[in-house]
Amino acid sequence: MIKIGIVGAGGYAGETLIGILLRHPEAKIVWLMSEEAHKGKKITELYPHLKGEIDLVCQTLDDLDKNLGSVDLVFLALPHGIALNYVPKMIKAGKKVVDLGADYRFDDEAVFKKWYNLDHPDKAVLAEAVFGLPELFKDKIKKARLIGNPGCYPTASILGTAPLVAKNLIDRSTIMIDAKSGVSGAGRGVKQTTLYCERNDGVMAYAVTSHRHMGEVDHILSKVAGEKVGVTFVPHLIPQDRGILATIYAKITNDKLRMTNEGIIQIYKEFYKDAPFVRIYPTPCTKNVRGTNYCDIGVEINREKGTVIVMSVIDNLVKGAAGQAVQNMNLICGFEETAGLKQIALYP
Amino acid sequence: MIKIGIVGAGGYAGETLIGILLRHPEAKIVWLMSEEAHKGKKITELYPHLKGEIDLVCQTLDDLDKNLGSVDLVFLALPHGIALNYVPKMIKAGKKVVDLGADYRFDDEAVFKKWYNLDHPDKAVLAEAVFGLPELFKDKIKKARLIGNPGCYPTASILGTAPLVAKNLIDRSTIMIDAKSGVSGAGRGVKQTTLYCERNDGVMAYAVTSHRHMGEVDHILSKVAGEKVGVTFVPHLIPQDRGILATIYAKITNDKLRMTNEGIIQIYKEFYKDAPFVRIYPTPCTKNVRGTNYCDIGVEINREKGTVIVMSVIDNLVKGAAGQAVQNMNLICGFEETAGLKQIALYP
Amino acid sequence: MIKIGIVGAGGYAGETLIGILLRHPEAKIVWLMSEEAHKGKKITELYPHLKGEIDLVCQTLDDLDKNLGSVDLVFLALPHGIALNYVPKMIKAGKKVVDLGADYRFDDEAVFKKWYNLDHPDKAVLAEAVFGLPELFKDKIKKARLIGNPGCYPTASILGTAPLVAKNLIDRSTIMIDAKSGVSGAGRGVKQTTLYCERNDGVMAYAVTSHRHMGEVDHILSKVAGEKVGVTFVPHLIPQDRGILATIYAKITNDKLRMTNEGIIQIYKEFYKDAPFVRIYPTPCTKNVRGTNYCDIGVEINREKGTVIVMSVIDNLVKGAAGQAVQNMNLICGFEETAGLKQIALYP
Amino acid sequence: MIKIGIVGAGGYAGETLIGILLRHPEAKIVWLMSEEAHKGKKITELYPHLKGEIDLVCQTLDDLDKNLGSVDLVFLALPHGIALNYVPKMIKAGKKVVDLGADYRFDDEAVFKKWYNLDHPDKAVLAEAVFGLPELFKDKIKKARLIGNPGCYPTASILGTAPLVAKNLIDRSTIMIDAKSGVSGAGRGVKQTTLYCERNDGVMAYAVTSHRHMGEVDHILSKVAGEKVGVTFVPHLIPQDRGILATIYAKITNDKLRMTNEGIIQIYKEFYKDAPFVRIYPTPCTKNVRGTNYCDIGVEINREKGTVIVMSVIDNLVKGAAGQAVQNMNLICGFEETAGLKQIALYP
Repeated sequence: MIKIGIVGAGGYAGETLIGILLRHPEAKIVWLMSEEAHKGKKITELYPHLKGEIDLVCQTLDDLDKNLGSVDLVFLALPHGIALNYVPKMIKAGKKVVDLGADYRFDDEAVFKKWYNLDHPDKAVLAEAVFGLPELFKDKIKKARLIGNPGCYPTASILGTAPLVAKNLIDRSTIMIDAKSGVSGAGRGVKQTTLYCERNDGVMAYAVTSHRHMGEVDHILSKVAGEKVGVTFVPHLIPQDRGILATIYAKITNDKLRMTNEGIIQIYKEFYKDAPFVRIYPTPCTKNVRGTNYCDIGVEINREKGTVIVMSVIDNLVKGAAGQAVQNMNLICGFEETAGLKQIALYP
Repeated sequence: MIKIGIVGAGGYAGETLIGILLRHPEAKIVWLMSEEAHKGKKITELYPHLKGEIDLVCQTLDDLDKNLGSVDLVFLALPHGIALNYVPKMIKAGKKVVDLGADYRFDDEAVFKKWYNLDHPDKAVLAEAVFGLPELFKDKIKKARLIGNPGCYPTASILGTAPLVAKNLIDRSTIMIDAKSGVSGAGRGVKQTTLYCERNDGVMAYAVTSHRHMGEVDHILSKVAGEKVGVTFVPHLIPQDRGILATIYAKITNDKLRMTNEGIIQIYKEFYKDAPFVRIYPTPCTKNVRGTNYCDIGVEINREKGTVIVMSVIDNLVKGAAGQAVQNMNLICGFEETAGLKQIALYP
Repeated sequence: MIKIGIVGAGGYAGETLIGILLRHPEAKIVWLMSEEAHKGKKITELYPHLKGEIDLVCQTLDDLDKNLGSVDLVFLALPHGIALNYVPKMIKAGKKVVDLGADYRFDDEAVFKKWYNLDHPDKAVLAEAVFGLPELFKDKIKKARLIGNPGCYPTASILGTAPLVAKNLIDRSTIMIDAKSGVSGAGRGVKQTTLYCERNDGVMAYAVTSHRHMGEVDHILSKVAGEKVGVTFVPHLIPQDRGILATIYAKITNDKLRMTNEGIIQIYKEFYKDAPFVRIYPTPCTKNVRGTNYCDIGVEINREKGTVIVMSVIDNLVKGAAGQAVQNMNLICGFEETAGLKQIALYP
Repeated sequence: MIKIGIVGAGGYAGETLIGILLRHPEAKIVWLMSEEAHKGKKITELYPHLKGEIDLVCQTLDDLDKNLGSVDLVFLALPHGIALNYVPKMIKAGKKVVDLGADYRFDDEAVFKKWYNLDHPDKAVLAEAVFGLPELFKDKIKKARLIGNPGCYPTASILGTAPLVAKNLIDRSTIMIDAKSGVSGAGRGVKQTTLYCERNDGVMAYAVTSHRHMGEVDHILSKVAGEKVGVTFVPHLIPQDRGILATIYAKITNDKLRMTNEGIIQIYKEFYKDAPFVRIYPTPCTKNVRGTNYCDIGVEINREKGTVIVMSVIDNLVKGAAGQAVQNMNLICGFEETAGLKQIALYP
């Protein structure tokens, strides 16, 4: 059993992580940290559904020094700009780290600075971070000790788009990603925009041209393509707790216009043949992955219009956050990739 | 007061129509018709919320002959393929007709046949039908006596796209329309796919390359453009009762790449300056139009990517069906365009 | 046209009031006041659904002196404890006042103090306040110039229970009121408990033995009974925007055990025969009153168990707040009781 | 590993059972049966979320004879009145049976007939059935081979009320149970009343004096009390997928009026001290038990009114159906009571 510390336990990603790790055959949670306001509170005060499951009290990052020695691996689930001040110390202390925030997702400092307007205090540590999307970077992840866990939108968007880009099937300047997310992606912090009455029975776009996850998608898809790729990415809030559906549109390149649905489905199945958490079938619904680490993908061609449409669904808190973080832990620790992640979707 | 008959009163569009007409200053509902199973039932048995508002009993289309004489105008809200058997008789009897179904939306029989696989028994009547989208075709509507009321998706999609196409701002081969609809668009008929537990807390696409409303959008946008336009249109079901958001993506033509947000907003405001039900502002939410006849539109440019994004929201049962039908009635009867349609959105 | 000022325009009750008054045939909104943070903002910035409907800027209570002269009647929709500092000045200036908050609902200062722990600075003004439930106190309301508008839960609870108590049908010590409310009753202020993800897909009770509205129900039902009545009242939050269902249980008195469903329905119909906003029919749903000023009531007897069950539904923001306030305005101003309140439920 | 057959696999309870058993350490699903329309279909066609988890095809009860030999235990999840025709054959073949329907919940034929209007063809088999509520009847269950698995409402209602009745704390004639259920309790069959648009954003009571589960609650609570108990039970539909909250009201007996909250909480904790799936804490929310086998209970006294209020929440498809069925299987097969049932609530 490896010993685990969780920083950011009070948020939805942190709480989801606790739920997964409590049933993980190889991991044991040793301590939890959260924000100042939670200091000294039992995690079950914040989340009564955990009663009877765990009995830890929240500490804060001020308590890191006296706690770091007791764990093998730390998960951080924090707003961007905090982890980068603490992770170098963890790495130097020989700990493995999976950061669920944005601080270690970019191996290009300039790109990180463009989107987050922050500098990294320790470039050496940054240099060894690996983008934790196992379906694309499994070999690197296995050798890493610091993982930048992908964002929720990028997970759905990149997994949906990567085969198109890698196999050169589309005009890369025409990629349009319409992403629809449940409200939990916005976290548990109090804001007028995430009040029940503001979101129920309504849908709207936000951050139409400026969402930071667009930078992450561009950065990773460019790696996949081997050349610069820039997508149009528009996120939307829909009235549900969990789940992201990214519907991806692109024009098919002229030489591929005769591609059939069967053909492209086969390309996707082949591309993800070693990915235990990717399933390919038509028109997936977010309900089918609720509470699971799956990314379900459907793909169809509109022959008359010369376009391809991909639908990629995940549970934003599992494959889009805590589940993928555990998948990364499994890989860097040499556990079975699916350990602790075999939940079946809660349906309906 | 003009006298009104409603065919298809038992569906959500029919019921919404009743609600609007009961408060209309110039109209009086004289009779209601619905499906066989409703024959002889009070409408308030089907819809208890109408208790105290209306006391009519449902008849069926078998009762048309004895009832037609008593009205000036008939609304039909039926599945496609039924109205075309009854409308010619109504027109010949000198009645005005607004058909909320698909039968009279296409002035090209071949296109209608392609999408609906039906022939029109009376081409002369078809020939005088006018597509009832007042923001684009008000002059024709005013002179018509038979209106093909637009579909819900086409209303949001066409109003959102028309300025781009009319003003030649985009590459017309790159139009991608991602439409998200509340479940009421699927009607009140019982189906497993529209059960509460199948739709709550989940989002999915459907009819990804085959939705009939795509044909309607192409047909009308081609008229606006003066040349063939073909969009990629993908509808989605989201967990809410009402409301459609069509998010529209397109590549900007090379000569317009320097267009600003302010510039394009001005183009939209100018285009709709005589449209009492169109409002232009950023990132509209379907909640803002709930229960109203408004179409709220936002438009933004992603300069770096060379794309334009339009968000167009309507209440699918009002502007997307019954409200627009009344707007058309107002125009063909010479009433104020907004008569009976001044509801303020029910928020939250 | 009477001229209206609204204090507390930024909340859901205030916003609902604006929507109703904008279509009222006899009233014109002259100014709006809201909290400090809204000062100088257009109301349409707070509520984009009002664009095109109203163009006023929010002021605050600091601006009261210079504005009071311009209106005939003031609505206040504020948290308790604020109105009582401003209403005396309004009354002395000859204005009519409808207070949607709790400050003027109790004619017994001790009871008010017990539940709200506040003293009234001006007892004379308090003395002339009338509890604004028109179905029970219409004559007094017509003569009043200061109305304490009932709370949302009390409106549903009292209207559902009053006939039982007035007609002496039940053991008054056994009244149990299980009230279920949509989340809008908690207002637009930001709180963790009203976040979308905390309320969606979940139901729970709160303030199980301490909700202030229990005091209001007891106080008014005691007046109706002519002796002290004390109910057990438990509020619940359910995942919907609007609507309250109060399910009311009581043991039937021994001499009434042979009462039939038909009999008790008749009693209710008779009791509310002059109430234009009460409808009696079985198992009403909150959807049937959404957006309306109706209180729909169902009543059934469980003969074997000797109990009566009453179901009383309202829209908490209309009959439970803004609509009832306008109904009271209509009565004190001599307008038709239903003026401006003829909305038909938005269904589905 | 014991071998399992499931009859009624196509419904929500059946599907939930599959999900639990697929992760059960001691059980293996051997065959599935569903309704005629599903014959020959893969279960993953009915429930795509099971793709990659199970690959069985649905048979029907016509295939029972040739399949019965291959299993050790059969679960039946059927509408009432079907199981009683098949269970005797299973029992005589030496199989263990857990029936999730109503057919074996009553050991008194007359009571069963009163509520379901059916006769049992085999009284001997009926005589050995045990009501499968482990928190009350664990010893009997351990020795049984035929379990009548409790209904969803009765599970929440009985667990919430049993301590009050067993410890003689209340006037048993005043028990009022207000039960609120998610829509999945109504099953996956198509009905207008369970359409998304009929249930979303609305709450209503149904079967106000006639719900069959009232008979079940009365029957079992009478056993607990050792004398006849009759409750007033009113079920409600609320807009959520899963979860039941039963709020239970009763007058405290005169000699217990000085009981404190702490005192009664202690009584509940003591009563359920050996129940691994009961948790006691204030105002539980259905979200806290979503996807789990927990029954969370809160209890409070309204001292002024002399009443006790109990809030009892379950996931209707888990503790209210499939989870409890597996708990019963565990007991009759000698497995750990919690085997396969250690899911943590999916929150939010």
